Amino acid sequence: MTSPGHKKSVPLDKVRRYLEPGPIVLVSSALEDRRNIMTMGWHSIMAFSPSLLGCVISAGNHSFEMVRQSGECVINLPTTDLTDQTIGIGNTSGGNIDKFEHFGLTADASEAVAAPQIRECYANFECRLVDDRLVDEYNFFIWEVVRARAATSPEYPQTLHYTGDGVFMVAGEVISRRDQFLPQML
Amino acid sequence: MTSPGHKKSVPLDKVRRYLEPGPIVLVSSALEDRRNIMTMGWHSIMAFSPSLLGCVISAGNHSFEMVRQSGECVINLPTTDLTDQTIGIGNTSGGNIDKFEHFGLTADASEAVAAPQIRECYANFECRLVDDRLVDEYNFFIWEVVRARAATSPEYPQTLHYTGDGVFMVAGEVISRRDQFLPQML
Repeated sequence: MTSPGHKKSVPLDKVRRYLEPGPIVLVSSALEDRRNIMTMGWHSIMAFSPSLLGCVISAGNHSFEMVRQSGECVINLPTTDLTDQTIGIGNTSGGNIDKFEHFGLTADASEAVAAPQIRECYANFECRLVDDRLVDEYNFFIWEVVRARAATSPEYPQTLHYTGDGVFMVAGEVISRRDQFLPQML
Repeated sequence: MTSPGHKKSVPLDKVRRYLEPGPIVLVSSALEDRRNIMTMGWHSIMAFSPSLLGCVISAGNHSFEMVRQSGECVINLPTTDLTDQTIGIGNTSGGNIDKFEHFGLTADASEAVAAPQIRECYANFECRLVDDRLVDEYNFFIWEVVRARAATSPEYPQTLHYTGDGVFMVAGEVISRRDQFLPQML
């Protein structure tokens, strides 16, 4: 498996560039001597600055208590190169295997959180839990992105967008309509 | 502008099929004798059953008080055929124009809510507000989808996924990996 090339730091108010299109993502976490990865598709940008992201991590997932207790995670953005690994991670439990080892992924140290990040992913967003008041009722976590890095090439990678039922839509083609936007809307 | 052909009713626990991939959507609303449409990209599925969707509708939008006071909206799914209208709707204010008239869109009556739905969109999700406790702090609304309809052809339409800066990713190509999923994960 090849890793994306050089990654650059991304301004925190530009995280929407990568996550607003709605790709499936990989959530990595750590607690004590354990680490894990889960596949996650239910997320939304919630604010530019602070850079907020809301997501559902179901209580049935091995990662649930890890992210809740540690108050940290990394949101990693896989491209279609990682389709097999993304599906495999979503169909296994971290209670039985170390998913980094099992799927041949590299756990790089993060800067601001103890959770490792996945080197092979196109982008990595280090997150701290800022609001858990909807966790008990909806499994909904609100995170602040505190560090963001993304590969520089390709400019728009092919990403996976899950529809359920084993089917993904692929986004990658881009249309730019900048000239149709008001300056304040850009 | 052509409208999608026949629409069928969608089981409410299958709404994720259309919205989990993260498309930009059009939110239609009504309050007293006013109606409006806004473009919205910050949303997440939150539960299968009841069918819950969370989204950010900024207090700066003309639609904000309309959806909050009426407690209703329709989430409409545009395809790339409606790219110009989708951008136009996001760059104008309902305080100045009737967006249905201005953009040549047809306001069909909804079944369960007073908010009209957009005939030219591929799918329409009628929503009732079920939780507004995060509205004051995050402009985050939690909706229950109470009626869902979608066109039957094409099976996977081309949808728009916004990155900011006037640039959309287009999803439409599909990959099916059903055989790699555990039965209980489908």
